[in-house]
Amino acid sequence: MHVAVVGVGLIGGSIGLAARTHTGARVSGWDPDAGVLAAALQRGAVDRAAASVADALVGAEVAFVAAPVGRLGAAVAETLAAAAADCAVTDVGSTKRAVLDAQSDPRFIGGHPLAGAETSGVANARADLFDGATWYLTPTPRTAGVLYERLHRLLVGFGARPTAVDAELHDRLMAAVSHLPHVLANVLVAQAAGAIAAGEAVPATGPSFRDATRVAGSNSTIWTDIYLSNRDALIAEIDGTLGRLQTVRGALAGADATAITEWNDAARTHRDALLGTGLAGGAVQELRASVPNRPGVVAEIALALGRAGVNIVDMSLSPSPDGSQGVVALWVHGDEDAKRGLDLIAALEIPVVRA
Amino acid sequence: MHVAVVGVGLIGGSIGLAARTHTGARVSGWDPDAGVLAAALQRGAVDRAAASVADALVGAEVAFVAAPVGRLGAAVAETLAAAAADCAVTDVGSTKRAVLDAQSDPRFIGGHPLAGAETSGVANARADLFDGATWYLTPTPRTAGVLYERLHRLLVGFGARPTAVDAELHDRLMAAVSHLPHVLANVLVAQAAGAIAAGEAVPATGPSFRDATRVAGSNSTIWTDIYLSNRDALIAEIDGTLGRLQTVRGALAGADATAITEWNDAARTHRDALLGTGLAGGAVQELRASVPNRPGVVAEIALALGRAGVNIVDMSLSPSPDGSQGVVALWVHGDEDAKRGLDLIAALEIPVVRA
Repeated sequence: MHVAVVGVGLIGGSIGLAARTHTGARVSGWDPDAGVLAAALQRGAVDRAAASVADALVGAEVAFVAAPVGRLGAAVAETLAAAAADCAVTDVGSTKRAVLDAQSDPRFIGGHPLAGAETSGVANARADLFDGATWYLTPTPRTAGVLYERLHRLLVGFGARPTAVDAELHDRLMAAVSHLPHVLANVLVAQAAGAIAAGEAVPATGPSFRDATRVAGSNSTIWTDIYLSNRDALIAEIDGTLGRLQTVRGALAGADATAITEWNDAARTHRDALLGTGLAGGAVQELRASVPNRPGVVAEIALALGRAGVNIVDMSLSPSPDGSQGVVALWVHGDEDAKRGLDLIAALEIPVVRA
Repeated sequence: MHVAVVGVGLIGGSIGLAARTHTGARVSGWDPDAGVLAAALQRGAVDRAAASVADALVGAEVAFVAAPVGRLGAAVAETLAAAAADCAVTDVGSTKRAVLDAQSDPRFIGGHPLAGAETSGVANARADLFDGATWYLTPTPRTAGVLYERLHRLLVGFGARPTAVDAELHDRLMAAVSHLPHVLANVLVAQAAGAIAAGEAVPATGPSFRDATRVAGSNSTIWTDIYLSNRDALIAEIDGTLGRLQTVRGALAGADATAITEWNDAARTHRDALLGTGLAGGAVQELRASVPNRPGVVAEIALALGRAGVNIVDMSLSPSPDGSQGVVALWVHGDEDAKRGLDLIAALEIPVVRA
């Protein structure tokens, strides 16, 4: 197998490492930044540093385009132009609208691995980055079956879980579960800044605020392109949000306790269903423990659960606004682990409840 | 000092324990639930279980009303009616609109300790619950100075940090940093449920979604009352949110990259400023480490930092959607701890970056 990688940063570099390490493929790489390309070669992410996109594509059977979303459309077009008639071309962009023009080419299959957004650069590339990761693919009726099968098999070789999804649905899902949360985080910090500028009191932000605004103002270099590339789906989500806010505003203005309670209970049901579906291993249970805010307490809890084999799938330590004490929220899978977690934490004489 | 506590659950019980333990006060308690009152007596949260509100108030110099927000107005009125002319009466409600009627009584001082919302019941009451905690007080020009001073001194005796704030500003701040985040969390899960119901794909919710929806559908018994009691301030925040969403919608519809970038950069600035202000000990630094999702990794990191005396003020472990790997976000105070944290985590051969 001969693989071409166009753009050899964190994702492209990890693709090269995974292809070489796990599937024995030969990998040609190219990057617009010569220093990045040299680092990828030195790191072993590519066998050969190509002189151009066309050079990288010589003999390639599968080509990955790992360019930033803003440059993705052009990079995919250039790669398709250079690719042989029987070469599968895919991308790793987080929205599929960005590569809309390519969707009519039978050689192109949109892709989106759910991995590795937190660090960047080929220095952080890892052969196991995609191990167990969902890798969305967006084939169309025009997609060549033999090329889809080849790409699918290669991704399984990386340890990933290729999952076919309609491109429009993919973008809608990403708008709802990723892009809209980022928009609302930005709105929340702007609202809070407004409330605080008007007064003289020192604000005390609670854990709900910190959780909700953790992604506010994420790197504009990446996010401006993501917002714009998925703007149709995101606008639809914003419109839905505007409607829902008007509804709850009406219930508040009318002091309608029944409507507020029903709305809030429905949110609870939705949340439990979504989190149960979105994470592997069954419904997630939440434990909340009250702890003094000092070094070591988190470790104590995590160690006790770790020793007993209870995996913490999600955790949030929220200090009180003044930092004097805190609450550790722990999420574990299923009733069994929840019960054991409760017992283990209670045995440390730390107050804990099931949320 | 003679203290009366009306409502002896988690907060009222902790007030009783703090008053008895830290200030040597005698505490009379009453609760509408006879079982709760008996438990408070047994737990040592009160010296005497009173037969009525009036009985609890006999001889009291400071009275705390720790009733749920929905019953707070009535409970405060009943307490003021029974209280002596020189008795300070305060509450612990999370919105001050609920006790608006009482604000004209010179004996009444609105209060709101930022502590203990995660567990409930007198069984979880602690004498140190308020240790270091901000305790908002909302005096008015009519408030009797001698009573305010007496309450302030008592709260300092609890180990709390009493902080005077205008009642309206208090409610506006709470609407912005607590109630609005809860509303938006509810809206987000409803939007996501809508997107997913329309399609067939299994959704993969990322860390931004989980963080943003952690408080979705919080206990309606408590939250319906909170929403309604602070509805004027919350409606104002919702209106601000509607306006901001319309603005970003316009920028998206016009594909205005400059406007999107400026809006996103402003959010970053707001977020850093708010979090720097809202937490003690200077600006918070965020570290992000990529880890395999198995028991023990969190403990390893937390232990390494704990041993070195680097306090983790906030932490979030977010698994990838399929649970195969994860990212630990850690927040520490100041440059010094951030640098040491980076070195300590890197020494564990875990990829880590400063966010």
